[in-house]
Amino acid sequence: MAHDFDVLTGTALALADVAGTVIRPYFRAPIGSDDKSDASPVTVADRTAERVMWAVLVERHPEHGILGEEFGLENEGAGYRWTLDPIDGTRAFITGRPTFGTLIALTYDGEPVLGVIDQPVTGERWLGVKGRPTVFRPGFGSAAGWQPAATRRCSALAGADLSCTSVEMLEDAPRDVWGKLKASVKRVSWGGDCYAYGLLALGQIDVIAECAMKVWDWAALVPVVEGAGGRMTDWNGDALRAGGDGTVLAVGDAARLNDAVACLRG
Amino acid sequence: MAHDFDVLTGTALALADVAGTVIRPYFRAPIGSDDKSDASPVTVADRTAERVMWAVLVERHPEHGILGEEFGLENEGAGYRWTLDPIDGTRAFITGRPTFGTLIALTYDGEPVLGVIDQPVTGERWLGVKGRPTVFRPGFGSAAGWQPAATRRCSALAGADLSCTSVEMLEDAPRDVWGKLKASVKRVSWGGDCYAYGLLALGQIDVIAECAMKVWDWAALVPVVEGAGGRMTDWNGDALRAGGDGTVLAVGDAARLNDAVACLRG
Repeated sequence: MAHDFDVLTGTALALADVAGTVIRPYFRAPIGSDDKSDASPVTVADRTAERVMWAVLVERHPEHGILGEEFGLENEGAGYRWTLDPIDGTRAFITGRPTFGTLIALTYDGEPVLGVIDQPVTGERWLGVKGRPTVFRPGFGSAAGWQPAATRRCSALAGADLSCTSVEMLEDAPRDVWGKLKASVKRVSWGGDCYAYGLLALGQIDVIAECAMKVWDWAALVPVVEGAGGRMTDWNGDALRAGGDGTVLAVGDAARLNDAVACLRG
Repeated sequence: MAHDFDVLTGTALALADVAGTVIRPYFRAPIGSDDKSDASPVTVADRTAERVMWAVLVERHPEHGILGEEFGLENEGAGYRWTLDPIDGTRAFITGRPTFGTLIALTYDGEPVLGVIDQPVTGERWLGVKGRPTVFRPGFGSAAGWQPAATRRCSALAGADLSCTSVEMLEDAPRDVWGKLKASVKRVSWGGDCYAYGLLALGQIDVIAECAMKVWDWAALVPVVEGAGGRMTDWNGDALRAGGDGTVLAVGDAARLNDAVACLRG
């Protein structure tokens, strides 16, 4: 299958643009600490952004499938499927950290072929396309456009920067192996959600191991990380797939995949 | 003592400006995962920023004391002492997260009377002055100037957003009480260093409990948090002091201080 990546990339970036426009006004919007309603800023931002992306897709690619966390699945049998997560990193968003992200993935027969990580507050954006080098727009008020993104070499796990979003996530791990991985690396940092995978694609982080991940949490990350020189698998080193065990491993240096898997196999 | 806060604030902001100019080019600078040298970008940025702030202070206030993590103490007997931490959040900086910060505190006879939290990449800046409302410059490319910063009401710990920089930090806690606090709140988020205290001052986070904190880690935070309506103490609810046990507790709603201390006393 020869994909028309110019058109598909145009769509993906248009989706990131409209989602960002919806999400930005809700970032750090006042919210009571006891607000439990479905009308909380994060919920409204998430649902609205998914709706506007859905609207754009239905007009541009009526024959494509769409999977969103909020509104389910459209065109189940289609080869192309857009998988959307408007706000990946709900806790980061709720607490005002600019380290959440909008995730836009395109899969073909289940394989991720295009992914965007967009940070609508900083203006950072990562674009990964199967078979092409990942590119990054640096944001932070810089006028700089797309530039290459590349992971860094990591000659041994002992020198690696490891990252994970939260301790609580690890409580859902299928095996109690985090401690073994942690003991094998140089340093651990916490927080980050999809943003940490973007940092791995920039050569700032070497290993990320997470779990309890749904397809909309990881599908966009695969083309970004792999197009930057890294690898993404589950904790067994096998290809990620929808309906898998929810474990995700990313390494910046593909040569370290087996070392990390050896820790995570238990 | 009537402090000339207009002059002192001018100095503090000048320090933040020069430190940011030094630090920004090192953010996300390429660094090998196995770089162990003293010439790593974070070390050079940290030391250089402390030197330039020192240089500005010696010219503007030669009679004041200066305490920096890197270069020690100047004018030990002075009533006024500037306490500097150019890069609070080393792991955040190293991994490319824009959630580290430059901390500038002025104490008088040991009491923090002025504090700045500066994020040189996003452009966010918090200014707290004893007896005045805390103000915030929103950054992210916004032209908006200083605006009021205020913590939010938190009617019960059960509705609170709790934050802490890292699990590893808690391994140095004097008492094993984190689990009790965590079980009492709504939600926990990880990462943040000084940035999380800025978010608490904006009403995005309700409680922060950390430990292994030195005076340069917390002195700038006290005027920012308390001028925004919050409270900062140690885990016993006592005033923070240099040479204390390193525990730090911040609450956005002063009415929740006793509830949090009750958990942390064990």
